[in-house]
Amino acid sequence: MTLETTLAAIAPADPAAMAAARDLQARLTKPAGSLGELEDLSVRLAGLARSCPPPLPQPASVAVFAGDHGVHAQGVTPWPQEVTAQMVANFVAGGAVVNAFARQSGADVLVVDVGVQAPVPLDAPNLLDANVRRGTRDLAEEPALTRDEARAAVEVGIRVANALVDGGAACLIGGDMGIANTTPAATLIAAFTGAEAAAVTGRGTGVDDPTYARKVAVVAAALARHQPDPADPLGVLAAVGGLEHAALAGFLLGAAARRVPVIVDGVIAASAALAAAAFAPDAVAAMVAGHRSVEPGASVALAHLGLTPLLDLGLRLGEGTGAVLALPVVAAAVRVLHDVATFDSAGVSEK
Amino acid sequence: MTLETTLAAIAPADPAAMAAARDLQARLTKPAGSLGELEDLSVRLAGLARSCPPPLPQPASVAVFAGDHGVHAQGVTPWPQEVTAQMVANFVAGGAVVNAFARQSGADVLVVDVGVQAPVPLDAPNLLDANVRRGTRDLAEEPALTRDEARAAVEVGIRVANALVDGGAACLIGGDMGIANTTPAATLIAAFTGAEAAAVTGRGTGVDDPTYARKVAVVAAALARHQPDPADPLGVLAAVGGLEHAALAGFLLGAAARRVPVIVDGVIAASAALAAAAFAPDAVAAMVAGHRSVEPGASVALAHLGLTPLLDLGLRLGEGTGAVLALPVVAAAVRVLHDVATFDSAGVSEK
Repeated sequence: MTLETTLAAIAPADPAAMAAARDLQARLTKPAGSLGELEDLSVRLAGLARSCPPPLPQPASVAVFAGDHGVHAQGVTPWPQEVTAQMVANFVAGGAVVNAFARQSGADVLVVDVGVQAPVPLDAPNLLDANVRRGTRDLAEEPALTRDEARAAVEVGIRVANALVDGGAACLIGGDMGIANTTPAATLIAAFTGAEAAAVTGRGTGVDDPTYARKVAVVAAALARHQPDPADPLGVLAAVGGLEHAALAGFLLGAAARRVPVIVDGVIAASAALAAAAFAPDAVAAMVAGHRSVEPGASVALAHLGLTPLLDLGLRLGEGTGAVLALPVVAAAVRVLHDVATFDSAGVSEK
Repeated sequence: MTLETTLAAIAPADPAAMAAARDLQARLTKPAGSLGELEDLSVRLAGLARSCPPPLPQPASVAVFAGDHGVHAQGVTPWPQEVTAQMVANFVAGGAVVNAFARQSGADVLVVDVGVQAPVPLDAPNLLDANVRRGTRDLAEEPALTRDEARAAVEVGIRVANALVDGGAACLIGGDMGIANTTPAATLIAAFTGAEAAAVTGRGTGVDDPTYARKVAVVAAALARHQPDPADPLGVLAAVGGLEHAALAGFLLGAAARRVPVIVDGVIAASAALAAAAFAPDAVAAMVAGHRSVEPGASVALAHLGLTPLLDLGLRLGEGTGAVLALPVVAAAVRVLHDVATFDSAGVSEK
């Protein structure tokens, strides 16, 4: 599917299904409102699916989009760029944290090379070679991508979302890997929300004070140089984004078009969620915020989208790890509408 | 096992296993510290198990302890007392929220009648009749239990913990059911922590302002009448506790004696955790706080114990629901130590 056909397929949540879910929650054998945020989540997912109860979000599939970044040359991270490709191999071998969490949650993991600089010489069923370009250009010097490259990466994400749903996934999870990728994420978040560079730039996987100051300056200078227009999401992604950011935006749009929930985690996915919402505001109905990243930009982005993260465990890893941790909570919220008896059916007295 | 033999079996966490877990976390393919609270949790569970990695907390068993309360006569809740027995039947039939969550998390549920007022005329493999007394006396008028009754309830909990561990459970979860049971929980928490009645009394499953004021007055009057001595936990449980509170205290002690983690959720379990810690301070090493209850007393109790809840989703239901939701998170924290590759083994460069 192209970007345009995907955008055309995205529709608002169904108010009737949401009302039915709210009504059912009130009749279940528990005090009204006693499931807190899980009740709201179950109502949202009913609206997305246009049915009450909505389908259980199982099986679930994680797609980890990997890419490299020209802005690495600006010294925004202490990690060498080669780690992106090395971690891709680690994901494929099942040795990363996202693999462990996915095993625990019963999700499968697909690794998508959408823009890794070094060739990934692996042939594995859980690795998709969809490399659009071997890393972005340096956004501090020039646009990171052409519009065509950005569109190609978005359409990789759309294609992956559709393939996973066609393969049976009832819930999608978006993850990322890319050394230096919190710098374009911060720039995207500033571009889409209007926030200051310092308010959205974080310490990523752990940078010292001079590196942090450099990173904020790079974000601020990129905004000044490119003047990205938030009404033109493809232009923003091209100017200051990354290939995995663009692919994740497409992945979220693909999920929304298929009316399948997609759990978002981390500052990279949050920046992609802003791009997806700029393409299609109704796409937000498909998004579930899994975990509150320690990165300040993630909170700015989620607040802008009106999303509240389910978990807050101090994770700052990316890979989709917080989203995978949240999957059982999302499933539990939906399962309540499937499994729990009503006061009437169970013969329980009301207050 | 008696209370005394159980207390004698509770030992401190093993510092060597904790150091090994901390060292292993630092070598795994992720930035140091990037798993936040899950790293600390994995270290604690290694110390409890005296091994690194500690066993995966699977399979897990939930025990829901049910009891009734004489203090119901004081008008501290809008729910009729018969609901306790009705909900026991609902648990046995698998229709309550804790059943739905346990199904999602892969845990089994045992319902324990330790003090329900109405006879529960059911014969089911997931129901244990261990009724010590058909509801407590009214703690506003007299001690809720005799010391012997309180001890018998504690030993029910110890027996259940041992039976579940003998049956293969690698993780225990304590839940509760009992109309009016947040009133004795608040009184227990005030007795063990020295907090004021108003600081630990909440609105339970949803009480109006006059009922809330009555509840605070009942808690304050009970503290003044019984003058419970926190150095005598059996005396405190007898004077102002409940049968399910006492059983949960024993359940936590039984888990600690077997060196098996036990996930605590809700204000009832939190009050029982204070009692267990008063019996044996080292028992806290076995406790994992699953969810931050909306009830203020739960936060007071957990802070007193030095425990931070993993989840905060606005639940205020009890039954162990928040603990069951946290189970996959606990399992994920442990699985990291089992499954994730090290920088060396995966050939990933360090910064």
